[in-house]
Amino acid sequence: MDLPLRGIIPPLITPLKNYDELDYPGLEKLIDHVIRHGVHGIFLLGSNGEGPSLSYALRKELIERACLIIDHRVPVLVGISDTSLEGSLEIARAAKACGADAVVAAPPYYFPVDQNQTVRYYEILADALPLPFFIYNIPSHTDIHLSVETVRKIKRKGALGIKDSSGDMFHFYALVDAFGDDPDFALITGTEMYLPDAILHGGHGAVPGGANVFPDLFVRLYEASLAKDLETIELLRTRVMAIYKTMYSVSDHPFSIPMSIKAALSVMGICDDYLAPPLERMTPAERDQIAESLKKINHTTNISATSTDP
Amino acid sequence: MDLPLRGIIPPLITPLKNYDELDYPGLEKLIDHVIRHGVHGIFLLGSNGEGPSLSYALRKELIERACLIIDHRVPVLVGISDTSLEGSLEIARAAKACGADAVVAAPPYYFPVDQNQTVRYYEILADALPLPFFIYNIPSHTDIHLSVETVRKIKRKGALGIKDSSGDMFHFYALVDAFGDDPDFALITGTEMYLPDAILHGGHGAVPGGANVFPDLFVRLYEASLAKDLETIELLRTRVMAIYKTMYSVSDHPFSIPMSIKAALSVMGICDDYLAPPLERMTPAERDQIAESLKKINHTTNISATSTDP
Amino acid sequence: MDLPLRGIIPPLITPLKNYDELDYPGLEKLIDHVIRHGVHGIFLLGSNGEGPSLSYALRKELIERACLIIDHRVPVLVGISDTSLEGSLEIARAAKACGADAVVAAPPYYFPVDQNQTVRYYEILADALPLPFFIYNIPSHTDIHLSVETVRKIKRKGALGIKDSSGDMFHFYALVDAFGDDPDFALITGTEMYLPDAILHGGHGAVPGGANVFPDLFVRLYEASLAKDLETIELLRTRVMAIYKTMYSVSDHPFSIPMSIKAALSVMGICDDYLAPPLERMTPAERDQIAESLKKINHTTNISATSTDP
Amino acid sequence: MDLPLRGIIPPLITPLKNYDELDYPGLEKLIDHVIRHGVHGIFLLGSNGEGPSLSYALRKELIERACLIIDHRVPVLVGISDTSLEGSLEIARAAKACGADAVVAAPPYYFPVDQNQTVRYYEILADALPLPFFIYNIPSHTDIHLSVETVRKIKRKGALGIKDSSGDMFHFYALVDAFGDDPDFALITGTEMYLPDAILHGGHGAVPGGANVFPDLFVRLYEASLAKDLETIELLRTRVMAIYKTMYSVSDHPFSIPMSIKAALSVMGICDDYLAPPLERMTPAERDQIAESLKKINHTTNISATSTDP
Repeated sequence: MDLPLRGIIPPLITPLKNYDELDYPGLEKLIDHVIRHGVHGIFLLGSNGEGPSLSYALRKELIERACLIIDHRVPVLVGISDTSLEGSLEIARAAKACGADAVVAAPPYYFPVDQNQTVRYYEILADALPLPFFIYNIPSHTDIHLSVETVRKIKRKGALGIKDSSGDMFHFYALVDAFGDDPDFALITGTEMYLPDAILHGGHGAVPGGANVFPDLFVRLYEASLAKDLETIELLRTRVMAIYKTMYSVSDHPFSIPMSIKAALSVMGICDDYLAPPLERMTPAERDQIAESLKKINHTTNISATSTDP
Repeated sequence: MDLPLRGIIPPLITPLKNYDELDYPGLEKLIDHVIRHGVHGIFLLGSNGEGPSLSYALRKELIERACLIIDHRVPVLVGISDTSLEGSLEIARAAKACGADAVVAAPPYYFPVDQNQTVRYYEILADALPLPFFIYNIPSHTDIHLSVETVRKIKRKGALGIKDSSGDMFHFYALVDAFGDDPDFALITGTEMYLPDAILHGGHGAVPGGANVFPDLFVRLYEASLAKDLETIELLRTRVMAIYKTMYSVSDHPFSIPMSIKAALSVMGICDDYLAPPLERMTPAERDQIAESLKKINHTTNISATSTDP
Repeated sequence: MDLPLRGIIPPLITPLKNYDELDYPGLEKLIDHVIRHGVHGIFLLGSNGEGPSLSYALRKELIERACLIIDHRVPVLVGISDTSLEGSLEIARAAKACGADAVVAAPPYYFPVDQNQTVRYYEILADALPLPFFIYNIPSHTDIHLSVETVRKIKRKGALGIKDSSGDMFHFYALVDAFGDDPDFALITGTEMYLPDAILHGGHGAVPGGANVFPDLFVRLYEASLAKDLETIELLRTRVMAIYKTMYSVSDHPFSIPMSIKAALSVMGICDDYLAPPLERMTPAERDQIAESLKKINHTTNISATSTDP
Repeated sequence: MDLPLRGIIPPLITPLKNYDELDYPGLEKLIDHVIRHGVHGIFLLGSNGEGPSLSYALRKELIERACLIIDHRVPVLVGISDTSLEGSLEIARAAKACGADAVVAAPPYYFPVDQNQTVRYYEILADALPLPFFIYNIPSHTDIHLSVETVRKIKRKGALGIKDSSGDMFHFYALVDAFGDDPDFALITGTEMYLPDAILHGGHGAVPGGANVFPDLFVRLYEASLAKDLETIELLRTRVMAIYKTMYSVSDHPFSIPMSIKAALSVMGICDDYLAPPLERMTPAERDQIAESLKKINHTTNISATSTDP
């Protein structure tokens, strides 16, 4: 894997038939869909991938299958966030065995911990990991917002970068300011709407959930941002905003984005829309709204989106 | 197990030598310590038991060992709280195989969910469980405060009671008001200071972390509360308050109670004071303060506490 | 005023005809209603009194009128909580001039402040106040939960007591433990459901919003608690719980208690149900539900409630 | 005042000698300092202006003095945020009498209110206001994050724009998307670091606290953003980041920005560094650090900053 990691790395949703059974054909179609449209890497078992909702056996099976399908066409990152250190290591060893390139670890999320305890957790984890790792900042799920100082300390243990899903753009800028001059440390935003700002101001990439559905849109937005092509950026941003206003707004559940994504992929004939508890598939009425929203998003700009033609 | 569950059910800490290794002699000594002093049940793998920090293999080993040692002297409850439904079921099956009496399940704690999603999660869980279950309300760790209506709906799936660790006494009173007339549904507080109020006003018991160290204190406070003996209650409450003011105040970590408990048990020669990451054993200086605090607590009242003589 | 303050001190709602106009007859009827039923003091311009929503001129007029009507029959406390130090002092000077006995001050609530800044704020305030003061802990409105240490420091400046409306019973017990042996310092709970627990365990009184409507209920609950008459306590507590389950549950607004209270007082013919913005009077349909709830509460126990017969 | 409001509108700090006394020469020097360096408007009595900490008499005196000094050289906006509707109107009437151009109103911040109550509050306020108004979204102080729908409803009552100090850039983009095509509605960010992103993506201006000290820096950043001059933007952004990393980081108080600003202005000989309680002036040691930070910020880039030469 070339460093720093850069570009569009979709947090792959995990196609499921049941809470302990993969949708194999769906997984294959989904991976081909995103790679064909030019994504620069794939992130398995993140929040959108429902990693924490799956049994360890299923997580390992997903890693194995996905790595076989991806077959080194793009780098593979594997989410190992867990409440148990040994559990995280177990998934990391499976990732190593299957040929994944790196792992991604959020702070453990059951016990409330402070910044210093979190640093020490990462230190123990890093020493035991069989693969290089990325830091994952996602306060909405872990209840801790990793400070710049905390990131600095964890970075010393060899972190290859950070995925910041805090939704706090000022924090991302502070990370760029602090670590932007390290050529090997990747600064990746998890908020799709911030992709152009992140790239324009020194970030390296994004992990946009929406790239499961619209990989070409985000790849082109990334390229326009790299080229500082403000006009194209504005055009494509309008479409990202349309995703939020239509597709992501269909359900008012507290974490509905992966529900929307799976419903959209199902409408597109790519994979099943089942989600593992506590998340839930959309109702038929919501699914119809998702189908409508796909049409609206595709018509938002003149840019054709072959990937999203159902 | 007689219903409703009642009395003092310590949330047993898990004696550890390392993050993936049990302290066997410690486990045996601890179980004998609490049973000898009259506790009415034992709760394995709760928050104080560091359940979420342990690998599944270790959780299963703990259940097996503890059930063998307890040998049906008191009912055994097993915490199965997890982010993965299949993971919870895996632990529940192990609990059933080892002869445990019931399981205890908090809502899944990675994805933010609302009250209705939580109800549906419990419905799926309840249908698949091999053992009866208790509801576990612990908003500080799960980010959801189960409403009376939510508890009412989950109760319909056969819940045997609720352990309320919300720290919200008004909520406990609302639970008593709503469910107090069901002779089989146990209302258990997880806040040790509320034990007498809970019993006086219609609750059935408590799951006090401090009962790992001072089982007799809590058993006697429970008995005094049952007997409405206000004078003894006041005397013993002073001692519970002393635990908070000294032992639980040694560390300012965000979740230091199990650290204090393990340090105290180690000072008393019962078990190792190791905690699995992200929690941490106390420093030698803090451990000295714990030793001091044990002395102070034992001298707070004239009531002798044989159990806590180091 | 005898120290410590004790008993039932209703946080008087402020009868209004419009957001800048008092309902004079309503004020007179309301004060007579609560004094006739035996309350031990009256607290003007608290949260239930909508103090912060009123202009300074109206607050001063209310103090003047109320003090005239009360005419030293019971002690008068005046809320001076404000974002402006000079504003608080202005109200305090008016309270002094009208013959009020003490003031009640919450921390300023616009700027986020820490415990130490809050202590220094109270020190400046206390030095400039013309009347003795009570501390007011109401984190739901001020975003700061005054710690025992903070209360200890403010107490040194001469505070006569604390009104704790945190809803955190453990905190109240910690206050009793810390300050219960000072014969002149009053520990008053603002959560009506906690009145018996507070009194049984060493507290001195309560400031129950519901005492605007049901002053006799709370006076009798206070007396039963003083007498440690557990049977009567349980009987009366059932009725307080009925207030929550019916009257306070009619509206789902985030702070609907004063709305319910004014609607009930209006049904009872005591005063207007207008509330100053941002609070709002109930709809006619809600008002009907309040009338129903009054009947239910009065029938919850056999204890006649002359005060609440509409 | 030309619509929409645009450019750099410093939230003027209020030079004070004591909590109820203005620093007149400081006020005059400060206003001249910011106008001389090209700001496009002045916002009195915002959070940085300590509006809520000042008595009404002092707020009115400040408005009168400031309007006389500004003398229509730039538009004047006056903060009327308060907990009391009548209080807000009183300040608004004073603003009108002194010739101010518009008022700025946050939701009332004592009682917790929901989105709909907030809309109705603004409707009552708008009908009674003698001047046009801007909406002020500052959830960190008011505990409510005004939704796009809420803004849409308030806008119908004639709002001239919104100052968004949520720190949530995604929300700002959603506001641009929703209201960007109304030529008379101003979208103003309150987060200084977001100024270039806000302008590049369709916003109209910023209310940067730091413009009290460095008005030219923000004016030039605004102009570079209008011109889409990415190179200059990056150069100047580095300097804004330096303000955060040095000046704003000297104190760890929860709301230290106005403390830093007043300390800096005092070092520069412009005005007194006194703050009204509950805020506090910096210690001499902190003030020295502020002096150091001013030097560092001025040397961050080659751009000379005559305004900040102490």
